[in-house]
Amino acid sequence: MTFTQMLAATWRKNNSLLCVGLDPDPTKFPAHLKGREDAIFEFCTSIVDATADLVCAFKPQIAYFAARRAESQLEALIAHIHKKHPGIPVILDAKRGDIGSTAEQYAIEAFERYQADAVTVNPYMGRDSVAPYLAYPKKGVILLCRTSNSGGSDLQFLDVGGEKLYERVARLVTTEWNRNGQCALVVGATFPAEIARVREIVGDIPLLVPGIGAQGGDIEATVRAGRTANGTGLMINSSRAILFAGHDENYASAARQVALTTRDTINLYR
Amino acid sequence: MTFTQMLAATWRKNNSLLCVGLDPDPTKFPAHLKGREDAIFEFCTSIVDATADLVCAFKPQIAYFAARRAESQLEALIAHIHKKHPGIPVILDAKRGDIGSTAEQYAIEAFERYQADAVTVNPYMGRDSVAPYLAYPKKGVILLCRTSNSGGSDLQFLDVGGEKLYERVARLVTTEWNRNGQCALVVGATFPAEIARVREIVGDIPLLVPGIGAQGGDIEATVRAGRTANGTGLMINSSRAILFAGHDENYASAARQVALTTRDTINLYR
Repeated sequence: MTFTQMLAATWRKNNSLLCVGLDPDPTKFPAHLKGREDAIFEFCTSIVDATADLVCAFKPQIAYFAARRAESQLEALIAHIHKKHPGIPVILDAKRGDIGSTAEQYAIEAFERYQADAVTVNPYMGRDSVAPYLAYPKKGVILLCRTSNSGGSDLQFLDVGGEKLYERVARLVTTEWNRNGQCALVVGATFPAEIARVREIVGDIPLLVPGIGAQGGDIEATVRAGRTANGTGLMINSSRAILFAGHDENYASAARQVALTTRDTINLYR
Repeated sequence: MTFTQMLAATWRKNNSLLCVGLDPDPTKFPAHLKGREDAIFEFCTSIVDATADLVCAFKPQIAYFAARRAESQLEALIAHIHKKHPGIPVILDAKRGDIGSTAEQYAIEAFERYQADAVTVNPYMGRDSVAPYLAYPKKGVILLCRTSNSGGSDLQFLDVGGEKLYERVARLVTTEWNRNGQCALVVGATFPAEIARVREIVGDIPLLVPGIGAQGGDIEATVRAGRTANGTGLMINSSRAILFAGHDENYASAARQVALTTRDTINLYR
């Protein structure tokens, strides 16, 4: 199955547009996990197992693993998801962007080493920096478009001949880079009007929407702006609000509770 | 010493603007190294030891290590450079770019885990995605500006209100992000006119220039366009042309020969 097919299946099967972001910051772990050598794997798999029937995708953020020499825990985590929860797509959030020969190496990292189903990619270096990921036709390639952070406007909101830079990225992806139907776009929940604008440009291409929860984006506005005609088309990501909902040994069930509420709140507006 | 001071010292001491890029592609290694578990470390340290008196910096490309589970060899390589060749700055070529909380993790990866002296960063997500690297005032932060690949023009060459996007990035770095004097910019050797334009905008800020050698950039045009008044200001990167100059057990001396010629050719035009 392709990433796009996996995503369509989990949207339906789990009745969910919720993507749980796995950003394991050990300084926020419950006390009983601190100091354990496999704490990151243990923490993430508990969250995964507690929420797998509520999500359309999981999105591990590689920076949290790389900062702590935990690459092998990331490999084990993704293998765990594929084995215990087959069919749920794993998005490696890596935001890679480099010349073609280097991008080939990053594609090997994401798709062969880690066995991710999709990877996030930065468009600043243009088409040949994206092509090596597109060369894996079953894999998803999720381009940064309009990011949820405050500095996102520094470049993305610049006018480039009658449209904003992020709109140009959305058009490039739609008309040139999505020939295999494998692309998606990152559009922050902090800007609902821009989600709507991107949806207008890209048709039914899936949008990965970070920024609800800790970053303050509004769920109703996000869903109304970004859903497709059949009420899907979105991977609405929440990381910290779910991961760190609880602070003791019951953290996984606390996470499940927030994930459930978030999924159901999203579903109110589909 | 700060990155900027280290760089000024190696420019002078080694009379060199040459940066050797360490992009260890094992499929191109000499036969006697193939199959060795530490082949990447062995290959890179041989190149480093053979060229250390000829360079202003070394630039390992993390993708080649990440694709092959060789993070520990990258740690060992950088430790080797610091120990055996103290004073030569190490640029971790990672082109990271993410929201602030994630960028903090990437800064830990680059500066604390790997002990790099500088890191390459993608500007697409704007100021708060760059701030966590700037928070290490002794470290270098090297922003992508005008990249050497063909797709670089897709976004970087767009007109944004009377200037190109890459010129806007150069101005942002110069006027806002370089308050500690720790920034540099990536400008590809394939576009000498644009190197000259960036030099005009940024004053004496160092430029990291990939694209000579395998990518075909012209050394004379690069140096004339990018040098500062005192004949420095450039880290002219060559990777493949040096690394894979030889194909047998003498690969390190073959690399030295090409590095020497490249350094001296650069110096003709300073």
